[in-house]
Amino acid sequence: MSKKTDFERLRARFREISVLGQAAGVLGWDQESMMPPKGTSARAEQLSALEGVIHQKLTDAELGDWLAAINPAELDPVDAVDVRLMAERHIRATALPARLVEETARLTAQSVSVWAAAREASDVNVFLPILLRMVELKREAAACLCSGGTAYDTLLEEYEPGMTSGELDRVFDALRPGLMALRAHIAEHPKDVPEPRGSFPHDAQIEVSRKLATLFGYDWEAGRLDFAVHPFSSGGRGDARITTRVDEANPFDCLYSTIHEVGHAVYSQNLAPDLAFRPVGEDAGMGVHESQSRSFENQIGRSRAFAEALFPLMREAFGAFGAGTAEELYAMLNRVGPGFIRTEADEVHYNLHVMLRFDLERALIAGDLSVGDLEAAWNDRFHADFGVEVPDARRGVLQDVHWAHGLFGYFPTYALGNIYAGELVAQLRRDRPYLDAEVARGDLSGMVAWMRQHVHRHARTQMPQELIAAAIGHAPTPAPLLEYLTAKFTALYPA
Amino acid sequence: MSKKTDFERLRARFREISVLGQAAGVLGWDQESMMPPKGTSARAEQLSALEGVIHQKLTDAELGDWLAAINPAELDPVDAVDVRLMAERHIRATALPARLVEETARLTAQSVSVWAAAREASDVNVFLPILLRMVELKREAAACLCSGGTAYDTLLEEYEPGMTSGELDRVFDALRPGLMALRAHIAEHPKDVPEPRGSFPHDAQIEVSRKLATLFGYDWEAGRLDFAVHPFSSGGRGDARITTRVDEANPFDCLYSTIHEVGHAVYSQNLAPDLAFRPVGEDAGMGVHESQSRSFENQIGRSRAFAEALFPLMREAFGAFGAGTAEELYAMLNRVGPGFIRTEADEVHYNLHVMLRFDLERALIAGDLSVGDLEAAWNDRFHADFGVEVPDARRGVLQDVHWAHGLFGYFPTYALGNIYAGELVAQLRRDRPYLDAEVARGDLSGMVAWMRQHVHRHARTQMPQELIAAAIGHAPTPAPLLEYLTAKFTALYPA
Repeated sequence: MSKKTDFERLRARFREISVLGQAAGVLGWDQESMMPPKGTSARAEQLSALEGVIHQKLTDAELGDWLAAINPAELDPVDAVDVRLMAERHIRATALPARLVEETARLTAQSVSVWAAAREASDVNVFLPILLRMVELKREAAACLCSGGTAYDTLLEEYEPGMTSGELDRVFDALRPGLMALRAHIAEHPKDVPEPRGSFPHDAQIEVSRKLATLFGYDWEAGRLDFAVHPFSSGGRGDARITTRVDEANPFDCLYSTIHEVGHAVYSQNLAPDLAFRPVGEDAGMGVHESQSRSFENQIGRSRAFAEALFPLMREAFGAFGAGTAEELYAMLNRVGPGFIRTEADEVHYNLHVMLRFDLERALIAGDLSVGDLEAAWNDRFHADFGVEVPDARRGVLQDVHWAHGLFGYFPTYALGNIYAGELVAQLRRDRPYLDAEVARGDLSGMVAWMRQHVHRHARTQMPQELIAAAIGHAPTPAPLLEYLTAKFTALYPA
Repeated sequence: MSKKTDFERLRARFREISVLGQAAGVLGWDQESMMPPKGTSARAEQLSALEGVIHQKLTDAELGDWLAAINPAELDPVDAVDVRLMAERHIRATALPARLVEETARLTAQSVSVWAAAREASDVNVFLPILLRMVELKREAAACLCSGGTAYDTLLEEYEPGMTSGELDRVFDALRPGLMALRAHIAEHPKDVPEPRGSFPHDAQIEVSRKLATLFGYDWEAGRLDFAVHPFSSGGRGDARITTRVDEANPFDCLYSTIHEVGHAVYSQNLAPDLAFRPVGEDAGMGVHESQSRSFENQIGRSRAFAEALFPLMREAFGAFGAGTAEELYAMLNRVGPGFIRTEADEVHYNLHVMLRFDLERALIAGDLSVGDLEAAWNDRFHADFGVEVPDARRGVLQDVHWAHGLFGYFPTYALGNIYAGELVAQLRRDRPYLDAEVARGDLSGMVAWMRQHVHRHARTQMPQELIAAAIGHAPTPAPLLEYLTAKFTALYPA
């Protein structure tokens, strides 16, 4: 009886923490897509006050007492996971001294604008002092949290529970040679691919984006589409918003940013409704999240079948646009080239970008690479992997905001997302043999329903790797992703 | 030394409370102008959790200790006002039991949508059970706060510090006969006034709205314009947002909603910057706020002089629009008629609408009028004051959202705003004898600067009546408003 009461108290407290976190999410969305420039400093204070309140609630000693009084074995399995997640969060929050949390928050607020200025000037030295301090703070945080593995593993745990850098090494070692071989094949067999040509007015791009979002199962009653310099999705369940951007020379930037963010948002909208406001009701981590956005965007959105559905939409919206057939559109959507920018990379190069960042950030945190040597290390590795010289820091080491945000351990989840997407879509194809026919006629409802059943609705009731394993019947490996990429791109770039 | 420290602690605590209140303000803005429908229930929880946190911080016993340890006489005058406001808020918050605060928040979240459905159906019975509970909660809150006067006076204090219903009676008794006489005069001397005729496309209305906002001193770097069914302004200083709505048959709804909200927002943008995040740095109450929106909208915006400035803007945006001269536009902007809807009322009828609501809501709170008798009382009073029968609840007792929000004591501030505006603009005209010439050429900078100097920058350093008295040199009375209205409308509707 008293244990039941402790659990109820925990539920109420974590519900509060959850809704306050949602409130911070709305403020973050507003900051990126709506807020006028002079709102910046007050918004930083609002977010830091909210973080402070949440941290206080998470570290409350009562929480520890309630948690200690519960025997998870007496709970049903979902409640037991909930309690485990609550305990992890309480421990993580109490392990970090307030001074460290505050300095990290202050440094992060400052570092993003310093990073932006450094990137603008393409001068890494402007950013290095802050990056150095950020690395120190992250190492200190990892030491406080000390989960048994390396400092980097501890940081990774926040984004991909249960994952280790050793496991990532094995996975990436299995993926890398195939990708390098595929790169080499395409470089040896170049092909003329048509480029978008025509008129792509802003409003027409948005109209097509809206149609695509609807096709991919986005619930407009539970979301909205706005603009952001760097598109993102935010919120969850009844209010999962997406953003996109418009380049009037290239409609695919807008359309595929939309599809990517719809992948995230549809996952959020479909999370088990009865687990709302609970830790166990959240998403299963960044890798699974990314598996949804990347499978929507690439495995489905850049498939030969989907080119059939997209072609008439493009014609209707833009008239002649540079591809005369769905086949040409398919080639256009899958042009391969060694660009400098991760977010613009094709499917072949994308994971090489991620592996580069993983190796460098792990070395930074381990102390094997100094911040002062980072740019040279980046440029050497980029030349080795991509065969071209990085022309400037803006297109090299300064391109991503993640390190300025202190998000060490985040990058690998992008590649894990692709690997999970490879497994999930391979299984989806086995379960729905006529998938391509559905997709070609613009019917994505079967795909979305499959993802809802096997991924979305399970929320955070399982560890990410368990969730994927349950969906596909075995532990996930990079093999299906590599098979998919090899089949697709050797056909597009034949010998 | 220790007293200084207590004040610093209070300052830090109230800074937190202020920024958390701002965060709630952003969530409220988002709810009205951005949020998708399925976000409603989570948003209610987010706001109620934030309210809970703020309430907790306000009621913290430490606060009482710090306040008790301070001798306001040892502080400079602005800090002393700050401490008085802190103490008032602490006392108000501690007087209200958490249960009451939470039920009120929950009921409010629910009641607005029930009210909207009732209004849609024009069926007051749908709304009455909730209204009944709301009245009960407000009476309970007033009893807890008990400031010495009546329950209604206690509620009024929140919106117009220092005002009482007895004082409102005196003020309204002085205003009412003149307004009724003016009504009668106009009814006896009807005049053909041109109506807007032409094409008023959405985008052109927004473009003119933006130009008007700029003319009236709105800082676009510290705000933005969006749409809402019921236009409102929100935020402050660096982020003061406005909303408007568009009726393609009548451009003045959009343009004058914009000017009204700009009046509020320019006040917020111009509040003393060095008092930011402090109680003493807030606005001086709803009456003063409304004095800004109403003087921008009416005394200036609907003046003969401003018609000169607006006429070419109208011509440029819409071509022929139904008025051939600035004089005809002036008449068009000042058409008088006994409409049912307060927010659409002309300057002659507006205050009669307010007095009706004041008398009814005071009777509800006092228990002299039952919720079940409210509609009949409304309809009787409306017939007596306006000479027409209310056709349905939508155009009668259900038209305003205020009671659904629990805002009892708020309505009178609209009329006080008009009265203050009458005094302020009369003084502005004495101080700037060439005001009309400036306004006619679209130069409102002198008017805005005067308001900034005499009203905006003082923030909440004085009581509203003191602030106005300092600006005009004597205690405010309704006389200038009545003189202004009589002169304006007997000229527009000559005998």
